[in-house]
Amino acid sequence: MHIPLIRRVLRSGLIGLLTIFLTANALAQADPLPSWNDTPTKQAIVAFVTRVAEAGGPDFVPERERVAVFDMDGTLVPEKPVPLALVPVLADIKDAVAGNPLLGDRPAVAALLKGDHAALHAAGEQGINDLIAVATDGRTTEEIVRNVSSLTAQASHPKFGLPYASAVYRPMRELLAYLEANGFRNWICSGSPVLITRAVSETMFGIPPERVIGSYVTTKLEERDGRTVLVFDGRIGHLNDGAGKPVAINLAMGTRPVFVAGNEGGRGDIAMMRWSKDRVGPSFQLLVDHDDGEREYAYEEPDNYSLNAARTYGFQVISIKRDWKAVVAP
Amino acid sequence: MHIPLIRRVLRSGLIGLLTIFLTANALAQADPLPSWNDTPTKQAIVAFVTRVAEAGGPDFVPERERVAVFDMDGTLVPEKPVPLALVPVLADIKDAVAGNPLLGDRPAVAALLKGDHAALHAAGEQGINDLIAVATDGRTTEEIVRNVSSLTAQASHPKFGLPYASAVYRPMRELLAYLEANGFRNWICSGSPVLITRAVSETMFGIPPERVIGSYVTTKLEERDGRTVLVFDGRIGHLNDGAGKPVAINLAMGTRPVFVAGNEGGRGDIAMMRWSKDRVGPSFQLLVDHDDGEREYAYEEPDNYSLNAARTYGFQVISIKRDWKAVVAP
Repeated sequence: MHIPLIRRVLRSGLIGLLTIFLTANALAQADPLPSWNDTPTKQAIVAFVTRVAEAGGPDFVPERERVAVFDMDGTLVPEKPVPLALVPVLADIKDAVAGNPLLGDRPAVAALLKGDHAALHAAGEQGINDLIAVATDGRTTEEIVRNVSSLTAQASHPKFGLPYASAVYRPMRELLAYLEANGFRNWICSGSPVLITRAVSETMFGIPPERVIGSYVTTKLEERDGRTVLVFDGRIGHLNDGAGKPVAINLAMGTRPVFVAGNEGGRGDIAMMRWSKDRVGPSFQLLVDHDDGEREYAYEEPDNYSLNAARTYGFQVISIKRDWKAVVAP
Repeated sequence: MHIPLIRRVLRSGLIGLLTIFLTANALAQADPLPSWNDTPTKQAIVAFVTRVAEAGGPDFVPERERVAVFDMDGTLVPEKPVPLALVPVLADIKDAVAGNPLLGDRPAVAALLKGDHAALHAAGEQGINDLIAVATDGRTTEEIVRNVSSLTAQASHPKFGLPYASAVYRPMRELLAYLEANGFRNWICSGSPVLITRAVSETMFGIPPERVIGSYVTTKLEERDGRTVLVFDGRIGHLNDGAGKPVAINLAMGTRPVFVAGNEGGRGDIAMMRWSKDRVGPSFQLLVDHDDGEREYAYEEPDNYSLNAARTYGFQVISIKRDWKAVVAP
């Protein structure tokens, strides 16, 4: 054998191995959640994910069971002044009311038209979905969905000066990526209408449309110009809020999720968090507390229902003020 | 440079390349559908899959859109003498009737208890789901699901002498694998109750539980012994048949599938096949004709509704007799 050549091969091999070793080490040490302050919240998330992903460890969860479910409005994106789902249908709602002024009597429609955001928020998920039912009545699923993505990318959020499609909580975007890198499949389970949420889930959150659960307006199969289409019939088929969330999650996947994130403000996420907590095996629940009026919004439930539940059942609470370095940022 | 060493390196490199080339060639030429006879049906399937997977070709379909939806009973497994979904709940139904004899007046319950399979088949998807509602009423989702998989693996199919869990059409199992190898995501859309189908979909068909759409009995969130559970309430929430299938598919994924397979016998699959056919872009619909009384069962709709629709809309028809080399085989 030719000695200098072998030396050369060995040397380049060693350099290669060293490079692999250093890169792996850097990756292992790179912070997967750079927009989170180093508080107990972040530490609890990292500790949990590490435990369930540790093969052979006492809390190991097989990859097929690693399902994470996120509420959307107030958990992944701000829910004020109007929820994301209404942005692409504002014009449709105004058109519908122009054609049928009686629709203006519905509380959510009246609040939206007056720009009364407090009344709109008080109308809750029922109100949002009433508006969607009005906007979609008699139209095909494909007519409605066509423009959702571009309208959401055009309209600008009044507080953050970013398009709605970019006004996402950066720490949550990092959390989604971190979970996925650790074998989790992320889902959305939102009170907002699935037809809207699903059209933006991939670009905004990296979550494919078939992993979105939401409220829905029912449809009927009809034939138009010889072609079968699904037509919205103006009736709400499922209101995905409160106890409706575990029901819908079970219907979609047949299992209790290991990881669930929601927010205080509308009482809507506690049922699915409790249902996750009661699974057999390890689980983690995360509740966003909107306590930063400067960088986002500060609001609470009058009776503190969700924060009290977090204390009772041992859910981890995110204080936006304390736990997040950045809030809404691309 | 040391010439013999370079020669040796080059030679082993060439052998490696040759091995790769031969293996790739063998794989390309291996028949992906060995249980199918070489008839126009098989040729049409292979031609379609090749076309939509050909990057740069005129009928190319991006992977994210490559969704295939299969009916189950009569399409992936025999639906006679009793559908698969009833096998794991037979004992539960008998228990329920023992506790409440009035339940025996329902047509499907009476047919099942008498072993009148013709009457049971005539009761259709409504009948099957009535039986499931009776069997599950008041029990938790987890109590019911727990034993589905083992009961299905134990009970033997009377005609094929195999456990129900293995009594699958081998040609369809090959088709599922062939589609998956070509970038398709396979789903089930069945009239049978999703809680049963989902418990066997992974082992029987390689389809994960979150890609199963079906009929369902509604549930309510309750607390039992301090633990949240979902309890069946005896009411059918959705009957996944006929025009209900496109509605449920759209709700689950928000899109029209590219590939749909169903069967004649119960008229239930034509709506979803038409809805797929009417998508913008290439699509393929496959209808199983049960015409082989010897190797499987021979039956037809009195008015030939499904076969007539196949002719009208240009769906491909599988004749079990002509197109399949093997039928039910592990």
